[in-house]
Amino acid sequence: MLKGKIEIHNRVSIDSGESKDKHGTLELIYTPGVAYAAKEVSINKELTYDYTSKWNNVAIVCDGTRVLGLGNIGPEGAIPVMEGKSVLFKVLGGINAFPLCIDIKDKEEIIKFVKAIQPVFGAINIEDIESPKVLEIVDRLRKELSIPVFHDDQHGTAVITLAALINSLRLLHKAMDTIKVIIAGAGSAGYGIFRILQEAGCKNIVVTDSMGAIFENRSEGSSRSGGDSGLDNNPYKKEIAIKTNPEKLRGSLSDVIKGADVFIGVSGRSNILTKEMILSMGHDPIVFALSNPDPEILPSVALEAGAKITATGRSDFVNQVNNALVFPSILRALLDIRIRTLSEDMLVAVATAIADIVDSAHLKNDYIIPKVDDPRISNIVNRVLRDAIQRHIGKKKNKNSK
Amino acid sequence: MLKGKIEIHNRVSIDSGESKDKHGTLELIYTPGVAYAAKEVSINKELTYDYTSKWNNVAIVCDGTRVLGLGNIGPEGAIPVMEGKSVLFKVLGGINAFPLCIDIKDKEEIIKFVKAIQPVFGAINIEDIESPKVLEIVDRLRKELSIPVFHDDQHGTAVITLAALINSLRLLHKAMDTIKVIIAGAGSAGYGIFRILQEAGCKNIVVTDSMGAIFENRSEGSSRSGGDSGLDNNPYKKEIAIKTNPEKLRGSLSDVIKGADVFIGVSGRSNILTKEMILSMGHDPIVFALSNPDPEILPSVALEAGAKITATGRSDFVNQVNNALVFPSILRALLDIRIRTLSEDMLVAVATAIADIVDSAHLKNDYIIPKVDDPRISNIVNRVLRDAIQRHIGKKKNKNSK
Repeated sequence: MLKGKIEIHNRVSIDSGESKDKHGTLELIYTPGVAYAAKEVSINKELTYDYTSKWNNVAIVCDGTRVLGLGNIGPEGAIPVMEGKSVLFKVLGGINAFPLCIDIKDKEEIIKFVKAIQPVFGAINIEDIESPKVLEIVDRLRKELSIPVFHDDQHGTAVITLAALINSLRLLHKAMDTIKVIIAGAGSAGYGIFRILQEAGCKNIVVTDSMGAIFENRSEGSSRSGGDSGLDNNPYKKEIAIKTNPEKLRGSLSDVIKGADVFIGVSGRSNILTKEMILSMGHDPIVFALSNPDPEILPSVALEAGAKITATGRSDFVNQVNNALVFPSILRALLDIRIRTLSEDMLVAVATAIADIVDSAHLKNDYIIPKVDDPRISNIVNRVLRDAIQRHIGKKKNKNSK
Repeated sequence: MLKGKIEIHNRVSIDSGESKDKHGTLELIYTPGVAYAAKEVSINKELTYDYTSKWNNVAIVCDGTRVLGLGNIGPEGAIPVMEGKSVLFKVLGGINAFPLCIDIKDKEEIIKFVKAIQPVFGAINIEDIESPKVLEIVDRLRKELSIPVFHDDQHGTAVITLAALINSLRLLHKAMDTIKVIIAGAGSAGYGIFRILQEAGCKNIVVTDSMGAIFENRSEGSSRSGGDSGLDNNPYKKEIAIKTNPEKLRGSLSDVIKGADVFIGVSGRSNILTKEMILSMGHDPIVFALSNPDPEILPSVALEAGAKITATGRSDFVNQVNNALVFPSILRALLDIRIRTLSEDMLVAVATAIADIVDSAHLKNDYIIPKVDDPRISNIVNRVLRDAIQRHIGKKKNKNSK
């Protein structure tokens, strides 16, 4: 029995209180010595980064309402997943990530909770909370917290998907600004992917949800049927409706996928993509079926139907497009550089750099993305984000000097 | 620079996803394998004790309103102290204790917070929250949570103080039921000590706060002067007023200490006990000046004034009466035996067993209590609490069979 994947270790050893060498003795670590550190930190809170583990602590906050593709299984069910995430944070980023799977579901209560734990953590990773609630939580926290807030389902998935797409387009000699992309799923991942693809220059994106294509004013047309088709209560789907679907396509996934170059599945639903749909796509189709644990279509089936490049979120198929490739290194950089907000252009810069790790000599249809544990990733992400921060500072200075 | 005293380690190592041996690979720890554990746990929440670290996780919850003797220094200032506590939990109890120093002060909000984190932790340790707010929080949580709630300032201090007192009385040939005890301080520690001493048979206890002795109906007499003398808003001081001070003594510490056998200082205020007060005590005075980091009187001064036995909370004087001696082993037992509530008689049983660790051959005025890192403590506490639980079950059975 594994009985948990993580544990807390001490960075100091304690001797008996009678030791002459005071370093690491009980007097220093606990009373009375610790009182002096406590006083200093209370006067200058910035010292938490020097005197405590805050500089390297990340909270993984999850309410269990949308765990993997399993849905609303509750905070207890989420713990094994978040402990797994913590293991990856440590192995791939050297980070102390503590899984806080919480028994509250209300948006305002979750925001309050994260604000409450702010003193102890250097960054927050929001995870597997249902959409659109989570998108609002993340937006609010990014404004209201003084530490960075990363939303892996949104930002991590977006970065790694863009990296995989950049290399797929290189292989198939297609251009970002002329392809047609279908994103199945309008939750956190779908929203994050649409935003990063637009920032990267993609012009023709259609996002579908369980009611089919999202288009402007869809709510009026189909709200009669009930269901979740209305966009009125979901500002994020409204934003998608306004900014995507330039041809104003309507209809189901099988209707709108015709002639598309790329399918990106982040729907949380298995087997929604059929062979027939792939056959109706444009030439050299790219099929990323990223839902976990069960993808929108199995890669073998997609290849049979003519897909040229396939990817899933899983490590047991080729081309694993999994956030695990980016979240540890992005959080590592957020902590090291003390970045407060990741802008969209920074995310594109990271995705491009990760795509570039696969050099042209090795790039092929079943190797479009580095392995999750590629040792080069962390340094490259760190460098790219340092450069991006410098550019942002430069821009601000230019603006101010004008 | 220490940069924190604790860090998170993995209990598993991950290989590349291509490893044939699936134990410890990414497939098992993360997606897709983890989905199966997540599903199982969501159906049977009890499995969190087998499939996650819950069985060994303790949350140290602190709002920074009463840190050591430093007072309300805020959650940031509390972090170095709670990380120190976490180190002791690990070294002395083998426990993963995560310090959650939180930026909320409202009683109901703190209760909500602790309820929210319940899925991840096997027990809660409440720490350094101001009284009487904290006593109400602890009472509520003990009723409303399904995991045990330990309040170290109250329960830990009470156990170790009683243990030290038992051995002091042995040395000085005094009896628990005939001594007069002054407890300076009516916060969490004072409240906990009064309760455990009564359970242990002590009959003459006077508790003082900053307004002097606590007696029944004190509020009416002295509320005119403002300050914190009123008992009306503090049900815990009211309870103290009703259950202690059998002679209905009034007046300051120096008035009521006359003729006392034992002084126990848990006031958070340094140098409030004077030589003159000790001179006014009964024969062979016992002086426990337990406030940290600065005790109510220095041991050297107390001895000069005639104290026979002295103790402090600090490791740099003899007779360290410090919760660190008990909280790791009590929490270890709570986790191992899955006890939900520690009753007062269990606390007395633990204190007595800890006192007995010091055998009569070694017992002397400057060795009344085992060292904090005495390796025998944990097993003894575990055994005593297992026996206590058996007795409680036995009593219930007897009651039911009647």
